[in-house]
Amino acid sequence: MSLLIVGSLALDIIETPFATLEDALGGSATFISLAASYFAPERIGVVGVVGDDFPERAWELFRSHGIDTSGIEVVKGGKTFSWHGKYHYDMNTRDTISTNLNVFADFKPRVPADFRSPDFLVLGNIQPDLQCEVIEQLDQRPRLILLDTMNFWITGYRESLERTLALSNGLVLNDSEARLLIEHPSLIVAGRRLQEMLASDGPRIVVIKKGEHGSLLFYDDHIFSAPAYPLEEIFDPTGAGDTFMGGFIGYLAKRGSISYQDAKRAVIYGTVLASYCCGKFSTEGIENLLTMHEEIHNRFLAIHKLSSFDLEESEFLEAA
Amino acid sequence: MSLLIVGSLALDIIETPFATLEDALGGSATFISLAASYFAPERIGVVGVVGDDFPERAWELFRSHGIDTSGIEVVKGGKTFSWHGKYHYDMNTRDTISTNLNVFADFKPRVPADFRSPDFLVLGNIQPDLQCEVIEQLDQRPRLILLDTMNFWITGYRESLERTLALSNGLVLNDSEARLLIEHPSLIVAGRRLQEMLASDGPRIVVIKKGEHGSLLFYDDHIFSAPAYPLEEIFDPTGAGDTFMGGFIGYLAKRGSISYQDAKRAVIYGTVLASYCCGKFSTEGIENLLTMHEEIHNRFLAIHKLSSFDLEESEFLEAA
Repeated sequence: MSLLIVGSLALDIIETPFATLEDALGGSATFISLAASYFAPERIGVVGVVGDDFPERAWELFRSHGIDTSGIEVVKGGKTFSWHGKYHYDMNTRDTISTNLNVFADFKPRVPADFRSPDFLVLGNIQPDLQCEVIEQLDQRPRLILLDTMNFWITGYRESLERTLALSNGLVLNDSEARLLIEHPSLIVAGRRLQEMLASDGPRIVVIKKGEHGSLLFYDDHIFSAPAYPLEEIFDPTGAGDTFMGGFIGYLAKRGSISYQDAKRAVIYGTVLASYCCGKFSTEGIENLLTMHEEIHNRFLAIHKLSSFDLEESEFLEAA
Repeated sequence: MSLLIVGSLALDIIETPFATLEDALGGSATFISLAASYFAPERIGVVGVVGDDFPERAWELFRSHGIDTSGIEVVKGGKTFSWHGKYHYDMNTRDTISTNLNVFADFKPRVPADFRSPDFLVLGNIQPDLQCEVIEQLDQRPRLILLDTMNFWITGYRESLERTLALSNGLVLNDSEARLLIEHPSLIVAGRRLQEMLASDGPRIVVIKKGEHGSLLFYDDHIFSAPAYPLEEIFDPTGAGDTFMGGFIGYLAKRGSISYQDAKRAVIYGTVLASYCCGKFSTEGIENLLTMHEEIHNRFLAIHKLSSFDLEESEFLEAA
């Protein structure tokens, strides 16, 4: 099925304890679309904006992954959005050194005429009113609208965010964002309450990402707890959350399903893609998986093994 | 099989955002033995020390759970160990207001003659040299020696701790303790290196507890990731870690097994018992489960459901 992704495209500066990279390809739409592309949905397109400094190798990367870039606006003489981040020693925390919005400051997403009926829609982390405008441009309601957001919108644009959530079927966010939005220390309570903020015309899906601790999927009355893939070293976690979201929606779009069973597997595929993302700088970890379907599947199986236990012999209590 | 537990017995003062409780029954040996008792191992005994202020209702509680208290020394005119702790709003962090060692200051564990050949031995969080002395008092090596420790011993008694670890088969500790002991940000690396510090005469078992994020079991070359039981409210987490350990060892002692499959299930039973511990003050949550075997088993099944996903239809990659 078709998949439309709206979000940022960026040229970042990333500092880690290991190295510093300038002009690192980044942005939510970049990571989401690359990750989703491995599941080869029928059609996959991006809506976003860049300056004419956006490098040829990025366009080529999208092309080679079958990603439709006709919805990416190029501002002549403009500079692409840039985030400068610095990771601490433990790689779990980071500081934003600077954020240069550049052409992103005036971004008004415009969905191309031939992409106004996507089956699946992902709204990356942008201002919630803009997310809302994208939904309003569509000719018909997608099977699933999945949203990301961040602290800045939660504290400063709560009403807009609530309006957009009420039009969406799914929300993917991290644990600190979930606690901030719901103001309750329990992630279980937060997940349940976030579900209540979503539209009621389909399954209500909330995914709370917990980094090294995996993630929690809330799907209607169900909860699914997924482990992280056990990595010994994290090289650069930039984009891991977006990559997770891309793997998640890519699998569902390929399956053409939004069932609970598929959503659980989608969480695991998101986890697998995110693990590759963390293993290298910028998008490098997810650029060359095209010939590695088997490797993606192997990590999927490894996570199954990691989290499985057998009930068979646990009946001793009855016999006790 | 028989199970010997060495650790503290305490009368604590617990402050939570909900209420304050004085003379709350506590201590590692208390929680471990109560939790383990639900699995009804052949014999279960405690070695520890109390003052003659240790209340009759505590003795009665041990008796009613089939716990042998002949190894608990009562110091005439002495006062029982007491910890005063205060939990923050989110219940994930706490401050120690005071620690009164009292009779625990001069504690020299003495294993009763008829308990010197236990099949399973748990050494709760006490000074590592004392843990070592217990091992030396035994007539034969247990099938499994399981250890707990804490920040205070890791930073101040590292050599003693390393000596005790080299005599043990298993270590149960929380994530911050694991990072402190190994000085590496990755819990996967920490778990692996902790295993290397253990004795090599049996399986090397390390369990890293992550509170609301569940736990990681390292068993020889295997890793098992267990979720937490999804609680909406935490009432009092005091003793949850010890209760986990008690459920873990209680299940293994009942099964008479230290296989990987049983160790995985033991982690889940530990998780179940810990979830009951958090639901009420002090030991209240695990005092009256005697008639609730079915409830323990139901939470076990709930965790299985929470963490299971189906491989069946995931073969699409091959077909893609």
